[in-house]
Amino acid sequence: MNIPLIAPSRRLRRTPFSPGVEAAGVRAFTVYNHMLLPAAFRSLQEDYHHLKSAVQLWDVACERQVEVRGPDAGRLMQMLTPRDLRAMTPGQCYYVPMVDETGGMLNDPVAVKLADDRYWISIADSDLLYWVKGIVWGLRLDVLVDEPDVHPLAVQGPRADDVMAAVFGDGVRDIRFFRFGWFAFQGRWLVVARSGYSRQGGFEIYVDGADIGMDLWRALMEAGAPHDIRAGCPNLIERIEGGLLSYGNDMTRENTPHECGLGKFCNTMTAIGCVGRDALLRVAREGPTRQIRALAIDGAPVPPCHEPWALSDAKGQRVGQVTSATWSPDFATNVAIGMVRMTHWEPGTELMLHTPEGPRAAQVQAGFFHEQAA
Amino acid sequence: MNIPLIAPSRRLRRTPFSPGVEAAGVRAFTVYNHMLLPAAFRSLQEDYHHLKSAVQLWDVACERQVEVRGPDAGRLMQMLTPRDLRAMTPGQCYYVPMVDETGGMLNDPVAVKLADDRYWISIADSDLLYWVKGIVWGLRLDVLVDEPDVHPLAVQGPRADDVMAAVFGDGVRDIRFFRFGWFAFQGRWLVVARSGYSRQGGFEIYVDGADIGMDLWRALMEAGAPHDIRAGCPNLIERIEGGLLSYGNDMTRENTPHECGLGKFCNTMTAIGCVGRDALLRVAREGPTRQIRALAIDGAPVPPCHEPWALSDAKGQRVGQVTSATWSPDFATNVAIGMVRMTHWEPGTELMLHTPEGPRAAQVQAGFFHEQAA
Repeated sequence: MNIPLIAPSRRLRRTPFSPGVEAAGVRAFTVYNHMLLPAAFRSLQEDYHHLKSAVQLWDVACERQVEVRGPDAGRLMQMLTPRDLRAMTPGQCYYVPMVDETGGMLNDPVAVKLADDRYWISIADSDLLYWVKGIVWGLRLDVLVDEPDVHPLAVQGPRADDVMAAVFGDGVRDIRFFRFGWFAFQGRWLVVARSGYSRQGGFEIYVDGADIGMDLWRALMEAGAPHDIRAGCPNLIERIEGGLLSYGNDMTRENTPHECGLGKFCNTMTAIGCVGRDALLRVAREGPTRQIRALAIDGAPVPPCHEPWALSDAKGQRVGQVTSATWSPDFATNVAIGMVRMTHWEPGTELMLHTPEGPRAAQVQAGFFHEQAA
Repeated sequence: MNIPLIAPSRRLRRTPFSPGVEAAGVRAFTVYNHMLLPAAFRSLQEDYHHLKSAVQLWDVACERQVEVRGPDAGRLMQMLTPRDLRAMTPGQCYYVPMVDETGGMLNDPVAVKLADDRYWISIADSDLLYWVKGIVWGLRLDVLVDEPDVHPLAVQGPRADDVMAAVFGDGVRDIRFFRFGWFAFQGRWLVVARSGYSRQGGFEIYVDGADIGMDLWRALMEAGAPHDIRAGCPNLIERIEGGLLSYGNDMTRENTPHECGLGKFCNTMTAIGCVGRDALLRVAREGPTRQIRALAIDGAPVPPCHEPWALSDAKGQRVGQVTSATWSPDFATNVAIGMVRMTHWEPGTELMLHTPEGPRAAQVQAGFFHEQAA
C-alpha cells in the first residue's frame, strides 16, 4: 500500500511549535488527541541513532492537559485511578492507569500535582476530558475541569541536561525522575519535569501559553546547537526496545491494567473510591490470563505493523497478538510488543507470528530490550 | 507547506471497507474518531462534480456508534441533549446537539432509536463514549454503554435510490428523510437510513458486523456500475456550499448550539433533565451574540483553511472568524462558513477576511449556497 497524504484541517490541530517542526523538515505526522504529532524527520533509523547519542527537541503538545481544580480535586483524582495517591505531594508526577467500571483501560496519563487542589492530567490518545467531565456532572463535584492553554515540549536524549541547563539554569540538573520544579522563561513560570516518552533521559516542559512556544523552541535549538540538537519525535524503534506502551496500539479499553503489566500501579486495596475497584479486586486476586510481553521476531526486518498480528502455538492455536513491531539496529533483531496468553508467556517460549508477509518465528523475552546489553 | 505523509498505526484504525477504499485509489485521509476517513480520490473538484451528478460509495465507518441499552436508556438520552425526544419513535433518526454543563458543544451526533430501550448515537469527531460512560457511572444509571461492531457505509448522490434498490429491493425508496428501516443483506438485518453528510440525497447503511463489510461494498459497487458509481467521501466544497457544519472545525466546546444555528434543536423549556439546561435557558432568552453564517469571499481561489481566519470590520476591529473555505466551481466564488458577531451578521455586510495570503473582501450571505440557484 502506498502511504497516502494527510488532509489538513482545523480538526487536526496544529501546535504552537508547528512552524519549528515544519522548518526542521518533518516527513510524516500522526494524529494524537486531535492534534498533529510528528512521526519522522530524517528517517526512523536516523532519528533513532541520533536520539540515543545526542539530544532532540520534541513537539509533544498533543499530550493535552486536563486541569482539575477546586475543593473536590483530590477526591476526584483518587476516583479516576486505582493507584493510591495519598502520598503524592505537589512537585510529583505519577503514572496513573485510568479505567472504566469494568477495569478496562481508558487512558494511561501522567498526573502532575501542582497543589493540593490543582492537578494536570497529561493524557494519552483519548478524550479523557469527556470522562472526567461526565463523572463530575453525575456526582456534582465541586471542581472545575478544563483543557488549559498548556503545550508540552520535550527535550530527550543523553545530552538533555546540558541543553536544559543552558536555558533554565543549573537547577534543572537537580530535578529527580518524575518530579518537577518551576522554572522561568521570559518571566513566565513553567513546570519542568524529568520525564518523557523515551528511555534516553530528559525533560518535559509544560509550556503555559502558546504565545511563548516558538521563542522557547528557538532558545532550546540555539542552546542545543553545540550538542547537535535536532527536532525529533517519539521514536517507534526506541519505544519498542524500551517497552513504552502506546494507548490505542498496545492496549485498549479491552484490557485491564494487569494485562498491560501495570498491576504495580494498582493499589486496589487502598485506593478507596476509585472507578473499577470491584472489577480490579477480582482481577488482582486471580491475576490476568494474558499479559504484555516483549518478543523477538526472527528473520529480515518486518513490515510496518498497523493492525494486530496473530500469535499462534505449534498446533496453530491463537495464543496472543503483536501490536507493535520493528527492526532494531542496535539489537540486530526485530523487536515487538504483544499480548500473550498465560499458557505461553514464559520467557523463551517459541511462537508463530502471522505477519501480512507470511509467518515468522517469535520468542517471548524475559524483559524489554533496553534492559539487556545491546 | 508541503503536505506531509500520514504515519500509519493501529491507533488510526482501518475500517472494514479500507481494502475497497485503497483499491479505488484514495489520495488523502483525515483522522476522525481515531479512524481513517478518506478525504479525496481523484481530486476535490472531480469528486465534487461527480457527487452532484451521479452516485458515490463512502466509507464513513468513522461515524462510530455509542450504543445505549437498558431500562434507563430513554432517561439518559434526554439528559444528553437539549432536544425534546418525547415524540421520537423507533425508526426515527434525530440530529441532536450534545452539550456540557455550560452549554458548550461536545458533539453533534445523529441519534438512532432502535427500540424504546435501545439507541445508537452516531457521533462526530470526539470520544462521546467517555462522556456518556462518565455520566452513567456518576449517576449509577441502569444502562449498558458500548461501541458496537457497527460501521456506517453511505451511498450519496442523485442516483443513490437506484443503486440501493438494486441491492436491498425497492422498499428502500419509501424510506423518508431521517427515518430508517431494517433491510437484509446476506441474511443479516441492517439499519438503512435516508441520511448522510451531503445535500445530494442518499442513504447510510449501519453495517452490523465488520465481516460482511467488503461483501456489501462490492455488491453496491457492482449494482452501481450502470449508474457510474465511484468511491467517494464527504466533499469539502459540497459541504460548505450546503452549510453542513463540521464539529472541531466550525464549532467546538467554546460554542453553544445557538451560536451554531442549532437553536431549533434546543427545546430547553421541555427537555427536562438535560445537561446544560440552566446555561441554555439563559442563552435562549438573550440570544447568541455571534452566530454561524455563510460567507462569499472575493477574488481567486483561497488557499486551504486549516486554522481560523480573522474577520474584521472597516476599522480593522475583529468581528468573527472563518473556519471553512474553498473555491466553489458551481457558484463561481469562494464559499465559506464563519462565526460572526451580531453587530455584523446582517446579510450583505461587507467584511475583511485575513487569509495567510493577505486580506480579502467577504460578504455575509442570507443563507447557505445550496439554497440559491447555482
